[in-house]
This record gives sequence, structure tokens and C-alpha cells, in this order.
Amino acid sequence: MEILIAETAGFCFGVKRAVDMAFKAANSHSGKAATLGPIIHNPQVIQKLAHRGLIPIEKIEDTHKFDLLLIRTHGIPQDIYKKIQERGINVIDATCPFVKKAQEYAKLLKEEGYRVIILGDRDHPEVKGIVSYAGADTLVVKNAEEIKKPGRKVGIVVQTTQPLERLKEVVSRVVETAKEVKVYNTICNSTAMRLRETEELAGEVEVMFVIGGKNSANTKQLARLCQRIGVRTYHIETADEINTEWIKGIKKAGITAGASTPDWIIQEIRDRLEYLSSKD
Amino acid sequence: MEILIAETAGFCFGVKRAVDMAFKAANSHSGKAATLGPIIHNPQVIQKLAHRGLIPIEKIEDTHKFDLLLIRTHGIPQDIYKKIQERGINVIDATCPFVKKAQEYAKLLKEEGYRVIILGDRDHPEVKGIVSYAGADTLVVKNAEEIKKPGRKVGIVVQTTQPLERLKEVVSRVVETAKEVKVYNTICNSTAMRLRETEELAGEVEVMFVIGGKNSANTKQLARLCQRIGVRTYHIETADEINTEWIKGIKKAGITAGASTPDWIIQEIRDRLEYLSSKD
Repeated sequence: MEILIAETAGFCFGVKRAVDMAFKAANSHSGKAATLGPIIHNPQVIQKLAHRGLIPIEKIEDTHKFDLLLIRTHGIPQDIYKKIQERGINVIDATCPFVKKAQEYAKLLKEEGYRVIILGDRDHPEVKGIVSYAGADTLVVKNAEEIKKPGRKVGIVVQTTQPLERLKEVVSRVVETAKEVKVYNTICNSTAMRLRETEELAGEVEVMFVIGGKNSANTKQLARLCQRIGVRTYHIETADEINTEWIKGIKKAGITAGASTPDWIIQEIRDRLEYLSSKD
Repeated sequence: MEILIAETAGFCFGVKRAVDMAFKAANSHSGKAATLGPIIHNPQVIQKLAHRGLIPIEKIEDTHKFDLLLIRTHGIPQDIYKKIQERGINVIDATCPFVKKAQEYAKLLKEEGYRVIILGDRDHPEVKGIVSYAGADTLVVKNAEEIKKPGRKVGIVVQTTQPLERLKEVVSRVVETAKEVKVYNTICNSTAMRLRETEELAGEVEVMFVIGGKNSANTKQLARLCQRIGVRTYHIETADEINTEWIKGIKKAGITAGASTPDWIIQEIRDRLEYLSSKD
């Protein structure tokens, strides 16, 4: 069986950077260290870090037990950041530089007197962080239809993983009534490139393996895309989940992986597929 | 015959202001006065002003014969303005305030480091004026298709008479590749409102009279709109052109007029139509 792996599979720039920072901190820190929320949506990586003493915590109230706190790629709201600093805890800020930019642009737009509109999922931690910089009258929208009265002077920033088409629709909608519109296109290309390559790959193979946390939004998006194309698709987290029946008679399989999936998991799955197909 | 006149027919705010300024100047000035280019695209108004001593000239070189110069609604390029000032000629600036804003926004965008894109007709005097404020690398486009590489930091201004749909397409196109986009929607509502009302009126009547200069772009646009709707349409400049045959058997006629058509011409045409239909 031929196995094709997408070049864009796995860690994006921001996740790779954050995971490197996390392992470095876990290995070198002697005190008690934590990440605020799971550092990435991948249980295997979180487990590895926990074994090295870097524990994910959910609430800011739990920080008193720790002397080092790592901020994950999504970033955190401004007031939480201030609280952490007030508590005198050491901070390693692994916020993705692209997310950081979206936060800074939101702040800048507010300072320049724009009413800020954020295109994104209001329940996503990244958006919660950006909102905190954007002013009290900020509007978070999932699409153009949600915008009724944008205002006369409108600034737009975008959750980094949003599709470009949706941004274009939002900007078109705002330009209809606003007199002045300033847009920072903070969409990260890596998501779009991964989706494009996955689409191409799914068109070439008989079965697709989409690897990544079952709770990872961008991995689920990849799996949905493959299913829509009509190729048989398996969303798995680890090699253990693979069923021999899945590859029976298959000549060509494809592998893609979400932004939070580490290389070693992709390699394990590739190896397992090769082993199983050699016995087929 | 019932005659319906569009409420939005005739002078817009900027034209009314400019024509008032021109008549005031013509009546009060004792020296030799000129307008650079015809003040509006209406031969009858220009003739009236010429009788009062306000002469339209075409070239800046001809200004030496005059001691007062009136700038029309379209505005003029920056370098021409400077030349006039250097010659010490008195200037009455009747540039439409909305056009003036577009000029100022173009200048501001240039100063803020944006690459300026102007949506409009590059041969139109208004656009020639705006371009002069917008920097050497400015791009003037008629539509989104003309934009190949907009740049990373792009500012957009619009000729005041452009349709909103075209601006939305241009902004969508630019957002695709630019990282930062600032849009000043300098479209003047009066054009859109006149088109909308004309469209409604044309759907209610058997014949439409579109009044305005044969060389007036916005009047021609009104006539084209009526023709597209399928109503019999006559684009005329004065009451003399009306042919009795045109209204034979007609129960309901509509009148609209371009932004450069004075009220007294609209009234003359209404009166003539009423007179002819009373004899019918």
C-alpha cells in the first residue's frame, strides 16, 4: 500500500514554537509549573509534559500552587494576564505570534476610535483573548449575516483560523453602511494551506487518515472536508485505533493531521499502516 | 396625462452649492471671471452664466486673461491649484464637499503609508483631482478585475458616483492578499438614491423623460437604466426637443433628471408636456 503524507500535516509554526517552549520549561524548571488550559488539543503531548512536571490547570485560581505559568498559543484575556502578574508568578508567554498580532491590532483599532468587529467563534479561547483588547462595544460575529448595524467607523480583525471567504463577506457587509473601515487580515495561511493540500490529497487516495485530538477544531474541520469529498475517512488520535479491516485491499492511503498533532504520532501511524499492509 | 416627477430629479447638494456660488460670483464681480471647465454638464446653465460674464475656459494657460477663477464641483489636481495660486488669481473653490473629502482621504492614506487604490474612471476630472493627492504609486481601477497585485498595506477611496456593488467587489479582492486595508467609502448617496427612485418610477409609467446634458455621465446612466427596464425613454436637454407624437395616447409619464439639471428646465419640460397633452 502506498502511503502519502501531506507536507502541511501537523504542527504549525505557532504550535511548534509553543511545544518547544513547554518541553524546555518542563525539562529545566525545578519548581511547580503549569499551563493555563491544555497547551494544545493533543492528549498525548499533554501527557508527556505532565510526566515532566508541567501540569495543565483550568482556572486562574489554581495558580497559587505554582511558581511558573506557561501561556498557550491561544493567548489569554488581558485581565487574566494582569491577575497572574499581580500574583508574582513567572510567566512564559507562548501565545502564537500571529494571535499576538491580532490582539495588538484589536487594541490599536480601539485606540484609534474604531468600533471593533471580530470575525470568529466567541467561545474559542483565542477570540476571548482578542476581545479583551478590543473595547467594550466590540462585536464578535461568526458570519456577515450577524452584522446588523456595524457603525460608521469600523475596525475588523479575524480569528487566525477563519476562512478567507467569510472575511470577504464580512468586509463587504460592513462597507455597505460604514464610512471608514480598517481591516487587519490576521488569518494565518497555514490553516488555508493545510485545507487545500488535504483536499487535493483526498482526491487521489482510497482512504484518508486524519490525525489529531478528537476535541481539536481544526482536525475535525479536516475530517469533515475529506468526508465531503466522498473519500472514506478515519479521524484517529493514535496508532492503536487502526483496524486492519480499514486498509484491506487498499492501494493508496493518505495522511493529514491537525495543527496540534506532533510529528512522532504521524510517524507512528505511518509505521503501523505500513506494517499492517505488509501482512495484508 | 398624469406626469410624475422624481423627488431626486435634478441638482444634488454639491451642484446646487456650486451653481449658487457661480451666479453669486457672476452677479457681483466686475472684472473678468472664468470657470475652469464647464461648471456643470448643462449647456443652458453655462450659457446663462456666460451672459453674466462667467466664461468657461479649458486650459490653465488661458487664466492670464482673468482675475477670478471658479473651481467646479469635480475639483482640480493639486499642481493646477498651485499654478493658479502662483499666478495670484482670486479663486472661488466650488469643489463639492464630498469630492473634497475624497481628496483629503487620499492624501491622508498616502501620508499614513498606504498604497492608494482609487475606484473610478481615470479620465473623469474628479478622479484626476483625487489622484493628484494620492501618491506616485496610486492605482486607478474601474473594477476588481483590474487589480492584480494590490500590495500589503492598501488604502481605498472611491469616485463619489461609483456604484456600491463595485466598491464591495474591489474591497473583497484587496482583502484576499493585503494584510491591512483601510477603506473610505466616499460614494455619495444622492446618485444611488436617484437611480433607485428612477427605477421605481420607470416601472410605473408608459414613457420616461430623462432630462440633462447629452454629455452628462450620470444623466446617460439614468437613461440607460430606464431603457433596460423596457420603458420608452427620451433623453432630452430642453422642452424644444419634445415631439407631440411621443405622448400620443399616453396616460402616465415620468420625469427624472441628472445631477446637473436645473429645476427651471425640469419645470419648463413639465409645463410643455402638460400643454401638449391638453391639446391631445
